[in-house]
Amino acid sequence: AYSSGTKKVTLIPGDGIGPEISAAVQKIFTAANVPIEWEAVDVTPVRGPDGKFGIPQAAIDSVNTNKIGLKGPLMTPVGKGHRSLNLALRKEFNLYANVRPCRSLEGYKTLYDDVDVVTIRENTEGEYSGIEHEIVDGVVQSIKLITEEASKRVAEYAFQYAKNNNRRKVTVVHKANIMRMSDGLFLRCVRDMAQKFPEIQFEEKYLDTVCLNMVQNPKKYDVLVMPNLYGDILSDMCAGLVGGLGLTPSGNMGLNGALFESVHGTAPDIAGKDLANPTALLLSAVMMLRHMELNSYADKIERAAFETIKESKYLTGDLGGRAKCSEFTNEICAKL
Amino acid sequence: AYSSGTKKVTLIPGDGIGPEISAAVQKIFTAANVPIEWEAVDVTPVRGPDGKFGIPQAAIDSVNTNKIGLKGPLMTPVGKGHRSLNLALRKEFNLYANVRPCRSLEGYKTLYDDVDVVTIRENTEGEYSGIEHEIVDGVVQSIKLITEEASKRVAEYAFQYAKNNNRRKVTVVHKANIMRMSDGLFLRCVRDMAQKFPEIQFEEKYLDTVCLNMVQNPKKYDVLVMPNLYGDILSDMCAGLVGGLGLTPSGNMGLNGALFESVHGTAPDIAGKDLANPTALLLSAVMMLRHMELNSYADKIERAAFETIKESKYLTGDLGGRAKCSEFTNEICAKL
Ligand SMILES: CC(C)[C@H](C(=O)O)[C@@H](O)C(=O)O
Ligand SMILES: CC(C)[C@H](C(=O)O)[C@@H](O)C(=O)O
Repeated sequence: AYSSGTKKVTLIPGDGIGPEISAAVQKIFTAANVPIEWEAVDVTPVRGPDGKFGIPQAAIDSVNTNKIGLKGPLMTPVGKGHRSLNLALRKEFNLYANVRPCRSLEGYKTLYDDVDVVTIRENTEGEYSGIEHEIVDGVVQSIKLITEEASKRVAEYAFQYAKNNNRRKVTVVHKANIMRMSDGLFLRCVRDMAQKFPEIQFEEKYLDTVCLNMVQNPKKYDVLVMPNLYGDILSDMCAGLVGGLGLTPSGNMGLNGALFESVHGTAPDIAGKDLANPTALLLSAVMMLRHMELNSYADKIERAAFETIKESKYLTGDLGGRAKCSEFTNEICAKL
Repeated sequence: AYSSGTKKVTLIPGDGIGPEISAAVQKIFTAANVPIEWEAVDVTPVRGPDGKFGIPQAAIDSVNTNKIGLKGPLMTPVGKGHRSLNLALRKEFNLYANVRPCRSLEGYKTLYDDVDVVTIRENTEGEYSGIEHEIVDGVVQSIKLITEEASKRVAEYAFQYAKNNNRRKVTVVHKANIMRMSDGLFLRCVRDMAQKFPEIQFEEKYLDTVCLNMVQNPKKYDVLVMPNLYGDILSDMCAGLVGGLGLTPSGNMGLNGALFESVHGTAPDIAGKDLANPTALLLSAVMMLRHMELNSYADKIERAAFETIKESKYLTGDLGGRAKCSEFTNEICAKL
């Protein structure tokens, strides 16, 4: 679909270190001659008629037209009652599956070698339904909402992902021993989907057990699929195993488009100082290229980035180095 | 209260390896001349008028009278719709705070040195409310219930625990950025309680952030307090850091009594073969002794157990050794 001509991609540089790491990615893409055209949009939140901040219409229109976007970190508007704009984007574009691969990087040592897991998180409902009530004074309920529709579609995505990426196993992560109906429904949907992918191994594990095993032996796992909150937790934990959110990419898959993003914060303390590490955003952009079937560009950029990290001559401060963001970026460009 | 005479303690040996590790603990207590008297009760589930399995009345009566108990692992009755008996016990006795210390054991090497964290988990409500509905076909909700009463009382327990045990800091773990009302209420209760303990440091962290930091640097944390499910996850993860559930104790504090237990499974594959590791149950029993203000007995038993593990001559199979449960137990007794 993307093989001829240039394709437009929405770029949301974001706040804090967002603009500089976005510029780094753009520079690297130019050096690699990636056949895409960026459409940069501003998402400085605008106040809607209800007084709440939201995403500007121009940004929404751009993603809706291009159906693909790359996004830096966004600040949550300060003040009571404002929701994260990241969540607003997930909702707006029906981004139903959040995919976060966590792989050990050669040259960046952690306690764990050879981690290679992918968390696939239901991204639209569950504990993130936003439905809460105060029943009486001092008694509050939050509703975890699980639907067959959303569970099936993320289950299908997970198995299809495993198949397309030559992964051997899918683990569904749940607490259906406690939330028998909600996690039970999710579990059944994944179990049913497993039937349609006999070539992929399938297993069912409790969330607590996965957490325990993951810190002892992450090689037990491959692709993991789970409800929203469990994905929030496990993806961060897995990122921790390989070095943190500065090194791990993320993609949000929608019915009608996809949005790739780094999930670290805006790091206001180092913003504008040419000190940020663009790796997470760059690897997210590489995921995006694969999604666009621009695999050869993805491969060569990834290779150049991994080599640069492995040589460890131009590492940024968060990785224990002294290089500037621009030096790290230039080294990757030089390798391309 | 317990300083003169012998105190009766309910013993629930449990299923699978339960009886043999309970016998090991009893033997060690005898060797240490601990001034308590065991009252062993059977909890083979009995079917109630509703057809569901429950705890036998004699066991309930014993805990209610003695107000203190030690419990091995229990099998969940097989078949649809049966709830875990562990949960039934928590409910029956209003065991509102679950305390799980995780400390690195000298002599048992893991990837982490010097882990020393304590998770304190709200144990009666939250995601474990058991309230679930199918709204329409394929749409299910589970209710997370947070009350001021339960939040305050676990918050108070956490700070009091920190104070009594010379701990420096309490971290409240939450997702109030998402579950603003429910986790928001929990957070506020802990924050208010923090005011009453100015000598204890206090911090607020997102659950995902704690998971990420915990695998990178567990020394960042000390005592952690949180809603039910988060405690389920974090306590297992922390246990993983120091070697698993076979090594970590657990205590459930109630309004009217306390129940100490090992939280590993019944291990039916090795049951009855004298191969099980009694450490988790023994350390739970040591926690119980401290709760009963029998500190000198607690200290000497703990010392003997730690030394035995450190010498690593009599380790059970799960710890990479070849000793039988009885050999490990006898060595601890010999040291007493
Ligand atoms: C920023 C926050 C709302 C978000 C979440 O909880 O999903 C983040 O932790 C993530 O993982 O994308
Ligand atoms: C056995 C299970 C019901 C229980 C829980 O989920 O609380 C266990 O994981 C625990 O941590 O005690």
